[in-house]
Amino acid sequence: METSLPIGEYLIQRLLALGVRHVFGVPGDYVLGFYDQLVHSALNVINTCDEQGAGFAADAYARIQGVGAVCITYCVGGLKVANSTAQAFAERVPVVVISGAPGMKERVKNPLLHHKARDFDSQYKVFEQLTVASTVLHDPETAPLEIDRVLATMLRFQRPVYIEIPRDVVSAPTNTSHVSQQKEDTSNPDTLREVLREAVDMINAAQKPVIIAGVELHRFGLQGALVQLVENTNIPVASTLLSKSVIVERHPCYLGVYEGGMGLEEVREYVESSDCLILLGAFMTDIELGVFTARLEQERSISVTSEKASIRYHNYEEVRLQDFIQGLIDAKITRREPGMIPHPKPPQAFSPVPGEKVTVKRLFQRLNAFLDDDTVVIADPGDALFGGADLFVHGGTEFLSPANYLSMGYAVPASLGVQLANPKLRPLVLVGDGAFQMTGMELSTIARYHLSPIVVVLNNGGYGTERPMLDGPFNDVHPWRYHRVPEVLGAGRGFDIETEEQLDEALRVSRGHTEGFCILDVHLDPHDSSPALQRLTSALKKRVK
Amino acid sequence: METSLPIGEYLIQRLLALGVRHVFGVPGDYVLGFYDQLVHSALNVINTCDEQGAGFAADAYARIQGVGAVCITYCVGGLKVANSTAQAFAERVPVVVISGAPGMKERVKNPLLHHKARDFDSQYKVFEQLTVASTVLHDPETAPLEIDRVLATMLRFQRPVYIEIPRDVVSAPTNTSHVSQQKEDTSNPDTLREVLREAVDMINAAQKPVIIAGVELHRFGLQGALVQLVENTNIPVASTLLSKSVIVERHPCYLGVYEGGMGLEEVREYVESSDCLILLGAFMTDIELGVFTARLEQERSISVTSEKASIRYHNYEEVRLQDFIQGLIDAKITRREPGMIPHPKPPQAFSPVPGEKVTVKRLFQRLNAFLDDDTVVIADPGDALFGGADLFVHGGTEFLSPANYLSMGYAVPASLGVQLANPKLRPLVLVGDGAFQMTGMELSTIARYHLSPIVVVLNNGGYGTERPMLDGPFNDVHPWRYHRVPEVLGAGRGFDIETEEQLDEALRVSRGHTEGFCILDVHLDPHDSSPALQRLTSALKKRVK
Repeated sequence: METSLPIGEYLIQRLLALGVRHVFGVPGDYVLGFYDQLVHSALNVINTCDEQGAGFAADAYARIQGVGAVCITYCVGGLKVANSTAQAFAERVPVVVISGAPGMKERVKNPLLHHKARDFDSQYKVFEQLTVASTVLHDPETAPLEIDRVLATMLRFQRPVYIEIPRDVVSAPTNTSHVSQQKEDTSNPDTLREVLREAVDMINAAQKPVIIAGVELHRFGLQGALVQLVENTNIPVASTLLSKSVIVERHPCYLGVYEGGMGLEEVREYVESSDCLILLGAFMTDIELGVFTARLEQERSISVTSEKASIRYHNYEEVRLQDFIQGLIDAKITRREPGMIPHPKPPQAFSPVPGEKVTVKRLFQRLNAFLDDDTVVIADPGDALFGGADLFVHGGTEFLSPANYLSMGYAVPASLGVQLANPKLRPLVLVGDGAFQMTGMELSTIARYHLSPIVVVLNNGGYGTERPMLDGPFNDVHPWRYHRVPEVLGAGRGFDIETEEQLDEALRVSRGHTEGFCILDVHLDPHDSSPALQRLTSALKKRVK
Repeated sequence: METSLPIGEYLIQRLLALGVRHVFGVPGDYVLGFYDQLVHSALNVINTCDEQGAGFAADAYARIQGVGAVCITYCVGGLKVANSTAQAFAERVPVVVISGAPGMKERVKNPLLHHKARDFDSQYKVFEQLTVASTVLHDPETAPLEIDRVLATMLRFQRPVYIEIPRDVVSAPTNTSHVSQQKEDTSNPDTLREVLREAVDMINAAQKPVIIAGVELHRFGLQGALVQLVENTNIPVASTLLSKSVIVERHPCYLGVYEGGMGLEEVREYVESSDCLILLGAFMTDIELGVFTARLEQERSISVTSEKASIRYHNYEEVRLQDFIQGLIDAKITRREPGMIPHPKPPQAFSPVPGEKVTVKRLFQRLNAFLDDDTVVIADPGDALFGGADLFVHGGTEFLSPANYLSMGYAVPASLGVQLANPKLRPLVLVGDGAFQMTGMELSTIARYHLSPIVVVLNNGGYGTERPMLDGPFNDVHPWRYHRVPEVLGAGRGFDIETEEQLDEALRVSRGHTEGFCILDVHLDPHDSSPALQRLTSALKKRVK
């Protein structure tokens, strides 16, 4: 940096350099100085109703844009994004958590200041548990170095970081001699050569290799490389629940979502009978493994992530995922003839049956026919996700869900982040009624910034995922008239939907209503569920007690 | 315990013994087994919309009932109550945070389970920062001892604790030989004798002693002892913002709320000119000190809390607050003639001026006249609190506010906890529009359990407390039609209020509408504020940058 920027502005410059254009949050007195810098910068401040919404919006923004940022005040704001930050950690989403804090001079005699939890560093210690790097910018002298270090770690691991700015530091000048640096990680060339040689031999010797394309391909921007590898070799590729849409689902080599016994039987059968599984950037979690109904044998696996490379039972260190995939592209892997493989069925035309009540199965059939090239599906945990996994997302579309951490209430605020990151996308939000009651009123923020998601509330009177495991009054929620939320917000359009015809009509109108959000209150039977959920809950039920 | 209870049921018995009757929370698969035990016990499960609401409700419940409990699932639930737990820590509220968790057997090979943040103990480490005691019930053998230890620490310090129950432990039998124990802390009798002798001499030698009655008197149930001390001696008594209503405000010895330059001048003048300040259970925080405008000289102070006793510049250890106050009651403190002291003015009758728009000042005048003996005022941070501090709360009423930690969005869910703890109380909730947008939809839970708070939304278009410090678009919120929330919830009554007559009429109708909640959407000028807030923000403004 040539001129001496104030520290807050240095951070803003670094965020802009990473492609960040929007910062989500709620202000408070300890962070007002930084908010003032934000509104005078090229960054756009997006005020959510609650910090929780800001955390989820920043996470979704990062999944589309590459990096997200949430900016809140000390403790009363910061601790409200602990959960969304944990999710970003678990699902490898690079979010910068920026918190205001009491000034360093205010801390000297350890006074009882408002918003202080226990000690001045309590919030920092909380975020140490939930991020890959964290810092309190105690000292203007070291602040730029600290900012660089923390952001570099975020990019290296694609996970959230925490930056706390004491309010008397935010306007302090940075050291003019500081030069912003970005160290790039590299693979060890000898290790890389060896692991590639072994992997290529194993792939070429295989009769039926399969690629499992994990979420890290998306996070590290390797979707193009994946397509190239697949098209060089014609090796079939499956996604996981968390990585769904990492490859366009129309691709002839795409098998579908692999999720053990929870997924489609033909996909499971094909993947599990492979003699060479190539797992790229895939972290197989319990849900993605169909609650451990999956059978992926290590004996036949090659697995490379940002953390570890392994072939069968041995490991290699210092191998970057990027370099490994590029190595596979450059290597002489036998090109195969395209064979007969499972492939998602394109959606069928949907004809509403007059007077027929909507069922979960029919709802997803109808939604499948509704998707177009600009739709991004955002699925909340629950049947929204499990049913949503079977949707046939088009070329150019995205599918977003917290499919591993499974924090309910993600989808509505996520649509805020998604549409700000890419205004060309129209979010189709699938959310249960229980989840909507957590964060759905962030539709207020969506109205404020004139965005236009179509929100489908799966209104089945409670926590439908839990009923088959163990039911009780605790699985019920108070019935809301979700379609009347627009009356409270003075914005949006609401639809009360009981029948297939009403569903059909509401979706038709929603497609045309691009000037604001639409909310479809779809009444479903409390004990109805998608086939995928039925399979999942029967597996989960065994583990409750 | 004579029979071998399952561990979850042992915890339930211990909660019942502490007077807990309601547990707030949201279920999830890792905690379903315990929920099943809860609904089959004498405890009532109260399902909130979001875990944040459960955390605040449990905090408010504890302030009325003595102990509160919140029960949530692992990480996706637990981390959402990090903030409310921090508040309970800061404001000394005994809340038991009970979290479900993956079973011990599931953890062995460190698999990637859903809801896991970083490591299996990440959530535990987070709560170590925010509680006075925390435990993971790893082992059925030690679980009862651990539960006893953690609950005893909670009672000793009147602060929150954390209990994590792996789901495969919840139904395991407790050790039959375990006998539940409660060790009582005691004062060192020699130290107690010396500190009392010195304090009594100092009080008797003083011309103008004043008691500052802090929040710990409420937490330790010492309100009766305070009244006895005051009536033995006729020493005038002030409360703090956090302890307001610790003594009935009609008491002839009651001065008012002492809050430095933020409070009424006559109270400040009287307290600060005292030659012997007796601070009992008072933690003077920045807000309560009127953002450090207070002048309480240590040279003339006696201060005893649960943590520390000090006279002037020296300290005593091992002195219990309870024993010190009882000692003062038993000692020969000179009884004084009641003098002329400041005293809150009883509310004046309110006559609405036809057609006149409601101002903040007039709103509080009207509310002052509205309070009756069964009203409990619950004030959210912001002008709801600062204006609310001047309300004249009656004998038998309560005033609740997070006046130190100041987490916005407390008041609506708090009213849920308050009215369940004491159904005879009618909550009057004062909440800003910004705060309502965070948690106000917990009115859903209030409707579900047929409670009847009167919710006054101070609708001034944004974060009014911040505007005088540093204004910008980030202080605006999207305008909701708060009075139409009943249409979404299918419950409650809404009132749209612009004028004094409308306010008057709405309060009259609300008083009679006891079968459900009422919400008063009171439109105020964005730049209007209470005199107390005007004084506060001018003090805060100096500290923003």
